[in-house]
Amino acid sequence: MPKEHKVQIIPLGGLGEIGKNMTVIRYDNQMIVIDAGLAFPEDEMLGIDIVIPDYSYLLEHKDMVQGILVTHGHEDHIGALPYLLKDLDAPIFATRLTLGLIQSKLKEGNLDNIKATVVRPRDTVKLGVFKVEFLSVNHSIPDAVALAIHTPLGTIVHTGDFKVDHTPVMGEKIDIHKFAELGDKGVLCLMSDSTNVERPGFTMSERSVGHMFEEAFNSAKDRIIIASFATNVHRLQQVITAAHHTNRKVAVVGRSMVNTVAIASELGYLDIPEDTLVDVDEVVNLPGNQACILTTGSQGEPMSALTRMAMSDHRRIEIQPGDTVIISANPIPGNEKSVSKTIDLLFKLGANVIYESYQGMHVSGHASQEELKLMLNMIRPQYFIPVHGEYRMLIKHAKLAEQMGISRENTFVADNGTIVEFTRHGASIAGKVPAGKVLIDGLGVGDVGNIVLRDRKQLSQDGILIVVMTISRSSGAIVAGPDVVTRGFVYVRESESMLEEAKDKVRQTMNRLRENHVTEWAVLKGQVRETLSKHFYEKTRRRPMILPIIQEVE
Amino acid sequence: MPKEHKVQIIPLGGLGEIGKNMTVIRYDNQMIVIDAGLAFPEDEMLGIDIVIPDYSYLLEHKDMVQGILVTHGHEDHIGALPYLLKDLDAPIFATRLTLGLIQSKLKEGNLDNIKATVVRPRDTVKLGVFKVEFLSVNHSIPDAVALAIHTPLGTIVHTGDFKVDHTPVMGEKIDIHKFAELGDKGVLCLMSDSTNVERPGFTMSERSVGHMFEEAFNSAKDRIIIASFATNVHRLQQVITAAHHTNRKVAVVGRSMVNTVAIASELGYLDIPEDTLVDVDEVVNLPGNQACILTTGSQGEPMSALTRMAMSDHRRIEIQPGDTVIISANPIPGNEKSVSKTIDLLFKLGANVIYESYQGMHVSGHASQEELKLMLNMIRPQYFIPVHGEYRMLIKHAKLAEQMGISRENTFVADNGTIVEFTRHGASIAGKVPAGKVLIDGLGVGDVGNIVLRDRKQLSQDGILIVVMTISRSSGAIVAGPDVVTRGFVYVRESESMLEEAKDKVRQTMNRLRENHVTEWAVLKGQVRETLSKHFYEKTRRRPMILPIIQEVE
Repeated sequence: MPKEHKVQIIPLGGLGEIGKNMTVIRYDNQMIVIDAGLAFPEDEMLGIDIVIPDYSYLLEHKDMVQGILVTHGHEDHIGALPYLLKDLDAPIFATRLTLGLIQSKLKEGNLDNIKATVVRPRDTVKLGVFKVEFLSVNHSIPDAVALAIHTPLGTIVHTGDFKVDHTPVMGEKIDIHKFAELGDKGVLCLMSDSTNVERPGFTMSERSVGHMFEEAFNSAKDRIIIASFATNVHRLQQVITAAHHTNRKVAVVGRSMVNTVAIASELGYLDIPEDTLVDVDEVVNLPGNQACILTTGSQGEPMSALTRMAMSDHRRIEIQPGDTVIISANPIPGNEKSVSKTIDLLFKLGANVIYESYQGMHVSGHASQEELKLMLNMIRPQYFIPVHGEYRMLIKHAKLAEQMGISRENTFVADNGTIVEFTRHGASIAGKVPAGKVLIDGLGVGDVGNIVLRDRKQLSQDGILIVVMTISRSSGAIVAGPDVVTRGFVYVRESESMLEEAKDKVRQTMNRLRENHVTEWAVLKGQVRETLSKHFYEKTRRRPMILPIIQEVE
Repeated sequence: MPKEHKVQIIPLGGLGEIGKNMTVIRYDNQMIVIDAGLAFPEDEMLGIDIVIPDYSYLLEHKDMVQGILVTHGHEDHIGALPYLLKDLDAPIFATRLTLGLIQSKLKEGNLDNIKATVVRPRDTVKLGVFKVEFLSVNHSIPDAVALAIHTPLGTIVHTGDFKVDHTPVMGEKIDIHKFAELGDKGVLCLMSDSTNVERPGFTMSERSVGHMFEEAFNSAKDRIIIASFATNVHRLQQVITAAHHTNRKVAVVGRSMVNTVAIASELGYLDIPEDTLVDVDEVVNLPGNQACILTTGSQGEPMSALTRMAMSDHRRIEIQPGDTVIISANPIPGNEKSVSKTIDLLFKLGANVIYESYQGMHVSGHASQEELKLMLNMIRPQYFIPVHGEYRMLIKHAKLAEQMGISRENTFVADNGTIVEFTRHGASIAGKVPAGKVLIDGLGVGDVGNIVLRDRKQLSQDGILIVVMTISRSSGAIVAGPDVVTRGFVYVRESESMLEEAKDKVRQTMNRLRENHVTEWAVLKGQVRETLSKHFYEKTRRRPMILPIIQEVE
């Protein structure tokens, strides 16, 4: 009996979280990969720089991988590529701006020898058994695409990140006609963006922001300082256009903003009127009503340009009373407090800050409920997998789909690593592959795990106390120490007597054990730790990490 | 020439922040204190439990303090009292529930010998030269009051925390008539709550939440689990009422919730129909449609009851598919992620979670713009000090007041510690008193400062590496070690060769220094630290704290 063919959809990241998007589509012994993104560390991941998906499943099946398809150039879709491509030699397919951003990332990592192919919307690429079509969608970065993946068992549509913008600033509208055509011909499974499923209605057009900019730029009598996401090229375009219309020059500040503007204008994604862009040194010498500064820092990131300005710590720009600061972004969940803090500091310096969402200086790049319904209705898929969202969002998206006639049995609210399998006879969950978080700390990839994080947590709460002594090998007597060193626990100067008492207690404990002929170091250390832990908890109600170190001499 | 009399308003906390509210009113050599609250630590205050105001100014003038007036029983208004009252023996004036909550706090701290007077709205208390009237206001806790402080130079009105609720659940409405009367007679200065100044319109009545509860309780076919702030007694009342109307028994879960229900019902602030309250053990055995669990944890606090349930870690309550969980609270800024995480976990366990603000399961306890305008209009003060808010809120409130005809010269957007001084000739800023944050960590009050916090920060990011060696006093040669111990840095097992190399480098450094006759320990340690810092940064791009410890033997 011939083996039954099957298609598997295996999300390796992006489910139950916002971030590190990565999905594998497998047909028998062939695979393609959609996106390879990073996530930012959660609060409890102390000291971690970034998080990438565990893609060991791919490395175990290197030979099966036909290619990597990238939907757009945001970090949560491309940020793991510098790591993945060190381990996996697969060709990349992406649109022009996306590839430009990827190549700039890879260059930093000395990884510029990749096989890359530029695609355009409506292009088709054949990868083994898969035929992949790229469909234009709207998002908060140009050149975003959805994918239609034709397999021998049917078509899978992956929306990527999308919104429906009937009046985009530049570039193409979402390819309604193609989505409708696909739906008409029949789609096996839809995977759709769940980020904004909690929002009723329709996400506003990017163009609406431009009108607000023009108004604000017009009415400001002094400088405009405007912060946004560096990769939101259409937003940058609207800043430049509004500045041009109101007779202002624009200086670009912040490494990632400078980088995007360079790439986007080189590739023709920014239309910059002559003489509009100027140096920072030039902009600070212009009359206020002719100056506009476009900067990073809309999330209150500690090292960003706007945060430095707010802290009067920027090398070249000083906030002055009369400056209008526009935060053209919403805080990403978790950044609320750092954004508020930046706004407060800017107000203190005398700036007028425009930041409230009702002021219309920002719109989202993700589809709200009505757009999600439109997508479900256009595609009319047989099966549905909500993606790109925290768990409650996936559940909400499943409920939305149910209202549209897709039964809960045909919807898979999956976890990272879940295998959703399709055969001629139906679809089911067919097990799990390894999936999880790989933590990156400095050069270390995955070398910081639970024990290290637990230690960092304890150290961060109550610090550390180290007690060192040297004992005689022959007699077991203490010949040097005990010395006590603390960090992050108490001010030593104010706690001298408590620390002296601690040394006495250590001596007593060691002597008692010696009299009882206890010589095993593990026991000695354990007893010392216990004695000190009790001592300090009684005195301070704190539990520093206690680390006894014993050395031995003749 | 006789000395000119003056009134000073000196905020010691609550300006430029939400939390640790405390204000001093001084007339010549007499003072009264309004509130003594705590704040929760900011993210960078690692290991800190709570923060209280620096009230050293009060301790320097102990003899001048006539009394402490408390506006209501929230932690940000009473939480510093257990500390303050250890150092200052002053009588407290508060309404009945407020005092009940204060006394329960003080009992925990073995401080029950205080002088306390129960006041009622419209009562007047004479404290030295001050005549203080208590005015009823609406807030998210019963028995909240505003204060009218009559001084020889005029009347100061402090709103406390307030909203305008024309249909409160129980108790009195805000005392519009008295506020209007005060305004009519003339008020020198108004201090008004700025928490919700960013919100247009009018805050909804608490009663509107009750209607939503009844609907939700009615339509749920299984258990109701509802989380709210423990001190929101009217909210608890509405849960109990809705449960009673829908034939459900209520079990109260979570230490602070149990505590409030006990105090509030003992003092008559809760109207609990007979047989409505049951034990947890009883509620879990009831049919789902007869059960309601009222719990703490609306902020996703790690140790709270709801969070434990969500993590399947609660001793007695297990979330079951079909349970309806209602989060009757908004996340306080900074808690957004922990609340989302709890909601996700509850969904994973099969619960239906109602949490979105548009569902109407929560209303704020603070006045929105229209209510703030009403207050400004009723009081028509000569001078205005916006209080209880982060800096941007104070600024917004000042702008609102400007629209109401209070000029910016007559409005003081002050910092904690600022002295706003009034004489017969006008008002001005008259200097500063000490004000700031006192960090509480365990039993330590103010013993954790910048150095300890900086160390905790470094430890939390990259951990610590300790290198220990014993050297001979005579020869300077290493006779034991170097040993290397790390915590929170790397997995030792995977980094053995790097750590062995480190020891070699320490030996080389020590030998080189010995050959050059360098014997000062500070220099030896400095060189070792530098060598290792470079070594590990090259290998890992991390900067652990490096702690060389040297002991000496004969």
